[in-house]
Amino acid sequence: MLNYTVRFGDCDPAGIVYFPRFYDFFHQAMEAWFPAELGLGYDVFIRGRKLGFPAVRSEAEFQQPSRFGETISIELRVTKLGRSSINFGYRIRGPEAELRVSGASVCVCMDLDPSSTLFGRSVELPEDLRERIEAFGLTS
Amino acid sequence: MLNYTVRFGDCDPAGIVYFPRFYDFFHQAMEAWFPAELGLGYDVFIRGRKLGFPAVRSEAEFQQPSRFGETISIELRVTKLGRSSINFGYRIRGPEAELRVSGASVCVCMDLDPSSTLFGRSVELPEDLRERIEAFGLTS
Amino acid sequence: MLNYTVRFGDCDPAGIVYFPRFYDFFHQAMEAWFPAELGLGYDVFIRGRKLGFPAVRSEAEFQQPSRFGETISIELRVTKLGRSSINFGYRIRGPEAELRVSGASVCVCMDLDPSSTLFGRSVELPEDLRERIEAFGLTS
Amino acid sequence: MLNYTVRFGDCDPAGIVYFPRFYDFFHQAMEAWFPAELGLGYDVFIRGRKLGFPAVRSEAEFQQPSRFGETISIELRVTKLGRSSINFGYRIRGPEAELRVSGASVCVCMDLDPSSTLFGRSVELPEDLRERIEAFGLTS
Repeated sequence: MLNYTVRFGDCDPAGIVYFPRFYDFFHQAMEAWFPAELGLGYDVFIRGRKLGFPAVRSEAEFQQPSRFGETISIELRVTKLGRSSINFGYRIRGPEAELRVSGASVCVCMDLDPSSTLFGRSVELPEDLRERIEAFGLTS
Repeated sequence: MLNYTVRFGDCDPAGIVYFPRFYDFFHQAMEAWFPAELGLGYDVFIRGRKLGFPAVRSEAEFQQPSRFGETISIELRVTKLGRSSINFGYRIRGPEAELRVSGASVCVCMDLDPSSTLFGRSVELPEDLRERIEAFGLTS
Repeated sequence: MLNYTVRFGDCDPAGIVYFPRFYDFFHQAMEAWFPAELGLGYDVFIRGRKLGFPAVRSEAEFQQPSRFGETISIELRVTKLGRSSINFGYRIRGPEAELRVSGASVCVCMDLDPSSTLFGRSVELPEDLRERIEAFGLTS
Repeated sequence: MLNYTVRFGDCDPAGIVYFPRFYDFFHQAMEAWFPAELGLGYDVFIRGRKLGFPAVRSEAEFQQPSRFGETISIELRVTKLGRSSINFGYRIRGPEAELRVSGASVCVCMDLDPSSTLFGRSVELPEDLRERIEAFGLTS
């Protein structure tokens, strides 16, 4: 779980988080989850192994607005693990644990190595990553 | 329909549009649609009438990546009109009209006037806005 | 001093932080500095007292690029205190304390209350803020 | 010169453009200037020739705030041309041509090819680029 204090620049003239920012918060939670829960840095994959995890779909329900200065929590769970895809669920809660946003994304493991014949294609999740995600656990 | 040339700052280290940006493109298409298709500036509502249209949900499927320097088109349609809500559908196409992203959002008309008793609540769509949206037409 | 792990979405197709983001990091450091060093939340001013601190100038020298996954530190100092303005200096350092970016901004205290006759004008820094900044100390 | 309508997502809770966005507008003006004034796409360099133009310094004076819905113009000029660097000046004007922001940046031509021995180093401006910039003209 990631705690995040909503910043001035996250908010729009209505004084609340501009909704596309929440998708960035989802990604931020995923980036933090790699080292914190899997013990593998996100950059290890992107820069080291030249594998990326682009979203192929995402969605969110915005139930309560969030204002700047508020500390929200972003909770990530894995809801499904495919051959090359990971389904994530997200819940963002306000200072009193009330649900603010719920969301989901599906990310696909993709070859980012321009010199590979699979460049830009989806590839199987690396075995060490799969094992660590299974150890982390799936929740529906 | 809005044409947009993908910019350097829209893209991530994988060289493609960072997916939260597409939700910003959806909003951009909606902002442009107000004056272009309805004949009413978006700011007329926000700043003039103190009404906002926050998203209560949004979703997108990312079918093909978009690279910087490419000119994409963002097409908006209205799929449903409620008492206080508007459902939008979006299609983003690449230079050869191939589908890149399809998405949707539901926006709710909200009172943004801090001095109003309805501040922060959803309110009925203004009649002139409803009429113009109906004239623009709904498509499923 | 604020530690920050550079995120995927901060970086551009060249794989390094897209330079406008550093100005956002400066603002982020300032927002964190209010409660951490002055004991007064930034939102206390903006939302509570309807005072803002827009930048009237800013500048930066980018000496070394920063890559995503790196943890950088953002150090803020006050270099001058005017009647209504605060001059800030910033230093961003990499994981081995090497200088990455140095910057500066001048922020002016502005009346954000639409019902005030001074709305949108610069106003004197509130006395409690001035005292706390003086206690924090000025460094050239 | 680039015309740009300030968008909702560019603005902060004070209802004005969040200042780091202006640096993004500067970059946007530069990206548009390449094909429009030099006849060479910016992406031709980045993706084709693996040359980048990172900013090594930038600065801006924010003289008047800009509100969303306003159409501003972003004017770019070249103030100096070095062996590997380009100095830019920017002026952003409001709807009545009044000066809103003036700024400057220095960009350096950098080798972005990971397989080159000069990777990450500044290199001489390509001759065709230099010629076209000279034809565009320098203004102080």
